[in-house]
Amino acid sequence: MAVTVAVAGASGYAGGELLRLLVQHPQVEIGALTGNSNAGQPLGALQPHLAPLADRILQSTTVEALAGHDVVFLALPHGQSAAIAEQLGDDVLVIDCGADFRLREEADWVRYYGSPHAGTWPYGLPELPGAREALRGTRRVAVPGCYPTAVTLGLFPAYAAGLVEPEAVIVAASGTSGAGKALKPHLLGSEVMGSMSPYGVGGVHRHTPEMAQNLSALAGEPVTVSFTPTLAPMPRGILATSTAKAKPGVTAAAVREAYEKALAREPFVRLLPEGMWPATAAVYGANTALVQVALDEGAGRVVAVSAIDNLTKGTAGGAVQSMNIALGLPEELGLPTIGVAP
Amino acid sequence: MAVTVAVAGASGYAGGELLRLLVQHPQVEIGALTGNSNAGQPLGALQPHLAPLADRILQSTTVEALAGHDVVFLALPHGQSAAIAEQLGDDVLVIDCGADFRLREEADWVRYYGSPHAGTWPYGLPELPGAREALRGTRRVAVPGCYPTAVTLGLFPAYAAGLVEPEAVIVAASGTSGAGKALKPHLLGSEVMGSMSPYGVGGVHRHTPEMAQNLSALAGEPVTVSFTPTLAPMPRGILATSTAKAKPGVTAAAVREAYEKALAREPFVRLLPEGMWPATAAVYGANTALVQVALDEGAGRVVAVSAIDNLTKGTAGGAVQSMNIALGLPEELGLPTIGVAP
Amino acid sequence: MAVTVAVAGASGYAGGELLRLLVQHPQVEIGALTGNSNAGQPLGALQPHLAPLADRILQSTTVEALAGHDVVFLALPHGQSAAIAEQLGDDVLVIDCGADFRLREEADWVRYYGSPHAGTWPYGLPELPGAREALRGTRRVAVPGCYPTAVTLGLFPAYAAGLVEPEAVIVAASGTSGAGKALKPHLLGSEVMGSMSPYGVGGVHRHTPEMAQNLSALAGEPVTVSFTPTLAPMPRGILATSTAKAKPGVTAAAVREAYEKALAREPFVRLLPEGMWPATAAVYGANTALVQVALDEGAGRVVAVSAIDNLTKGTAGGAVQSMNIALGLPEELGLPTIGVAP
Amino acid sequence: MAVTVAVAGASGYAGGELLRLLVQHPQVEIGALTGNSNAGQPLGALQPHLAPLADRILQSTTVEALAGHDVVFLALPHGQSAAIAEQLGDDVLVIDCGADFRLREEADWVRYYGSPHAGTWPYGLPELPGAREALRGTRRVAVPGCYPTAVTLGLFPAYAAGLVEPEAVIVAASGTSGAGKALKPHLLGSEVMGSMSPYGVGGVHRHTPEMAQNLSALAGEPVTVSFTPTLAPMPRGILATSTAKAKPGVTAAAVREAYEKALAREPFVRLLPEGMWPATAAVYGANTALVQVALDEGAGRVVAVSAIDNLTKGTAGGAVQSMNIALGLPEELGLPTIGVAP
Repeated sequence: MAVTVAVAGASGYAGGELLRLLVQHPQVEIGALTGNSNAGQPLGALQPHLAPLADRILQSTTVEALAGHDVVFLALPHGQSAAIAEQLGDDVLVIDCGADFRLREEADWVRYYGSPHAGTWPYGLPELPGAREALRGTRRVAVPGCYPTAVTLGLFPAYAAGLVEPEAVIVAASGTSGAGKALKPHLLGSEVMGSMSPYGVGGVHRHTPEMAQNLSALAGEPVTVSFTPTLAPMPRGILATSTAKAKPGVTAAAVREAYEKALAREPFVRLLPEGMWPATAAVYGANTALVQVALDEGAGRVVAVSAIDNLTKGTAGGAVQSMNIALGLPEELGLPTIGVAP
Repeated sequence: MAVTVAVAGASGYAGGELLRLLVQHPQVEIGALTGNSNAGQPLGALQPHLAPLADRILQSTTVEALAGHDVVFLALPHGQSAAIAEQLGDDVLVIDCGADFRLREEADWVRYYGSPHAGTWPYGLPELPGAREALRGTRRVAVPGCYPTAVTLGLFPAYAAGLVEPEAVIVAASGTSGAGKALKPHLLGSEVMGSMSPYGVGGVHRHTPEMAQNLSALAGEPVTVSFTPTLAPMPRGILATSTAKAKPGVTAAAVREAYEKALAREPFVRLLPEGMWPATAAVYGANTALVQVALDEGAGRVVAVSAIDNLTKGTAGGAVQSMNIALGLPEELGLPTIGVAP
Repeated sequence: MAVTVAVAGASGYAGGELLRLLVQHPQVEIGALTGNSNAGQPLGALQPHLAPLADRILQSTTVEALAGHDVVFLALPHGQSAAIAEQLGDDVLVIDCGADFRLREEADWVRYYGSPHAGTWPYGLPELPGAREALRGTRRVAVPGCYPTAVTLGLFPAYAAGLVEPEAVIVAASGTSGAGKALKPHLLGSEVMGSMSPYGVGGVHRHTPEMAQNLSALAGEPVTVSFTPTLAPMPRGILATSTAKAKPGVTAAAVREAYEKALAREPFVRLLPEGMWPATAAVYGANTALVQVALDEGAGRVVAVSAIDNLTKGTAGGAVQSMNIALGLPEELGLPTIGVAP
Repeated sequence: MAVTVAVAGASGYAGGELLRLLVQHPQVEIGALTGNSNAGQPLGALQPHLAPLADRILQSTTVEALAGHDVVFLALPHGQSAAIAEQLGDDVLVIDCGADFRLREEADWVRYYGSPHAGTWPYGLPELPGAREALRGTRRVAVPGCYPTAVTLGLFPAYAAGLVEPEAVIVAASGTSGAGKALKPHLLGSEVMGSMSPYGVGGVHRHTPEMAQNLSALAGEPVTVSFTPTLAPMPRGILATSTAKAKPGVTAAAVREAYEKALAREPFVRLLPEGMWPATAAVYGANTALVQVALDEGAGRVVAVSAIDNLTKGTAGGAVQSMNIALGLPEELGLPTIGVAP
């Protein structure tokens, strides 16, 4: 029996990626599509790649439009999810691709978002210890941010195995779709192509406390995170270089073993064979994360590199993966693991 | 019951795309993978995006390795298919992604390839009038060239309806994967990015006679083709601008009507609504062709623009589509129609 | 003695390129910089590559701000140049990078721009027969459009030598800076990278009548132009493929000879040796046009391919070249002829 | 009176960039150009952007060809410079763009290059304290590596002012020209475009000891460096994110002041106004480094971001800057400070 699904924010990049995956999901029937500024327009005019849904008309994002579905995906600007979720009822699976319910500490939320904290929902990163259990049967999911997904998948084996100090230094490069469809001068093709630039430097990017939250939970103590995001000349993909100081006596073999053990049975995370390093192209459009790790003995640091597609494993694919778990469907159902390359 | 499939040339771009599609095809079981210069290596080292096949070992391309499968895809340099096909037996479906069996006229072959003509197989462009019938039950398929696929899908409605003169002028831009994995200086990323350049100018590109063959068959008279291919800074995609002089009295309405009629029921070709024009990004990784057409009344020409993914609809997707038809499977089985965008 | 120069529209791409060249021009002293929506801001915030001018403050675009300079460059939306030029006086050299004064026929202007025709100024394409003479000493210059520059430089030798019929079919690819800094969804990096798309298909692009004007003047009869522009995933560059039916009896040798003769002494146009084809990367940031030509004997067409940087030779470089001529300076002064490659 | 210059390795990317700059240098006369595998070919066939030198014929790289010039630039694979330099005589200014003479410690050289250490020449990074003095009048210059240039310019003010601990963590993204023209599969355009990937992870990249050498000299104690280079989908540019733990009590104001003081009078390094961050596009083809810095108080780290063009300030421009100093010419002569943007 099909699961009926509504998508709020269907005209954006996250919404488009959700629909790309959901159309190909064997158990899903796509219901209402909403998008405020584009309500009334056919989806084909806004998302020309979604040919099978070209004639669907966008509705306004209202509880009325979204109600009556088994699952509602919210791909909205932050701050809008709580009010909608409250009115949808506890039996509807609400999956929030925004930030509203990711952070546990109110102080973190207020500091980084400057508005009242809406609360905390089960966190949709099934690979974290204990996360799958929390997701099974839940009717609320907070989809992780794209950078925290890449970084956490890269570093959690090291923290879970107690191999590194609580001080991570992370630099990540993201494709431009991570910034959404907003019309900003620095996102114009003319500005982006052939150029790399940082933003949110110095600890001010909103994904910083989410990374710290994930790593601290694993470490059992507060982990400080220095995070620098950069914008790369590509539409999709995140490459995260995540480093942490190795604890005394940690060997390369111990690091390898920890990663092999942590990732061996993950369907969507692949530890590459030694000598290979991840490229974002290999996960283009796939729900896969590629991970590789090294111990830099000179610098005394563990260096993990992870590659994901920010829109797939980093947002919409991760959301569908959590949906599958929450509904008791096979976790891998409808999710591509092969990238579109070259 | 699964169809067993072998792929010769699995380490190249066409071979990799065949495997991306075949892994996701519900009726296919992937058998032998071959690749001469890389025999003995695991596929994961050569095609890191094909995670589920990472541990498969490439064999040498021999009849022994390829025999015993229901279907054999050949993604080899031209000139090598005939000898293999002969020894595989008439009951094996052999689908040649190379050029060897595309051209009907020996003189065309000799002029453009300079070697003896191997023959002519049923032509794997199902959208052409009569092509589906010829493909049903066949055990030999010549997959069209990527440019001829894009151009023919763009112009065939005009020629089939008798709206244009037998003189086509075509300029197309291709992503670099169309040139394969060959290590040539002009294909280096440093040379390609930020740059466009033509090649094979003046009627010397080998896809020229194939286009002329297709259009002439539709026109019922010889069509001359001026074709200029250009290399664009993108990994995938072909955008073809195909123009032909309109016959006297042809109106924009007549052109529109002819295209609507010709393309209405094609599962993999989409005539865009008036006012929209195709972008290659919308068909990234999809087996879809997007087409739009205009009558330029000042210049007296019909201008058709078509966008495909050169590796999907232009090669591997078209090949799988023909496989489906030849085997009596649903034509759309296992073929994505949604592009990975943005 | 230095020439004082003002630039109206200094915050846009054409204005920025003018300044890049003018800073390095040994005879120029840069005066007022204007830009309406950004008036009051330092140039460094808008054009971070123009380090030496970072602290200059943009003024509003008024006659007062522009008056008192020897030369005024206008890089404004069309329709605004006439009023300003009138008030600047006849002794000021006004160089309009916009379209207002390019077209000779009022009917062409009205049809393509839908507003009253401002008039016609000497046309700043010095390579055209007679153009240098008209530019010497002039105080008004209409800078050609970027596409007409590329196309005319590619085809004028064929028309000037009477080798081709009055029917040209042209397809060109442009980098995104040709569309300016306007915040439009289809110009976002996420949309542009990895994608090619056409626009203004069917004779509706405003550069079409300008090309026809140039080619008709050379042919001595009306030339029809079928022109299709496409947007390419690169910030700069135009690659134009311009074809025209060869007149009966025209040989490849005659074509080559005509091009060699027409281009031999041009400082900014280079006919490539036979066998080489132009790439836009080779003229990145240079005022150079690269041209190559072939006779396609099968199709009976002359095929010329030309590459320019749309912002340099296609706009700002061409404008400075015309300034040099108008002021009696050496034509090549201050203009780079080497591209930034790879 | 002109300085005569020879370039060994003129067919590569570093050689091409040297020539682009040297052609435009008012005091330079270009003499012999050499390139082993391409000897006998015209430069125009190999470096089509260098139009003014198109007809120059490459010679073999021999002492005979290079002798008799005032300056010889070596853009050769490492290990070849010592033998040539020895025979050129002490009065010739030899500027080595390779690695041979960069490292002071023989052990570093042997560990990272595995061959005998050739020695140490004056280091061509004039911005370092004391470096200009060492370069004045010298006849031997070791041009820094591109990554060490970017990283050192980003971090030296912090180390020179004693603000940070001797433990740096650095991640940098480079355009593909940094890898040269070698024909390697991972450098193909199809592989590079739309993708980011790391390489040389874990302290094995050869630029690591050079960074450590520079920073240690400033710190007055050994600085450990964790360095991860990544390959970005762009032809040129390096964006380096260089972080180091702040010493206790260091304030944001102190950091800003140190950077302002260190960079105030540097002609080729620009500390951006607060709130602006560097983009590589802004220095495309320019000899400029853009730097910005922040104190991340949460993580307790100084984060410096620097952008250079790897071929200009990172190689050829830096080499010409050192030539100017060595010869007593104005340091800025012939060197562009404006990037080609957008």
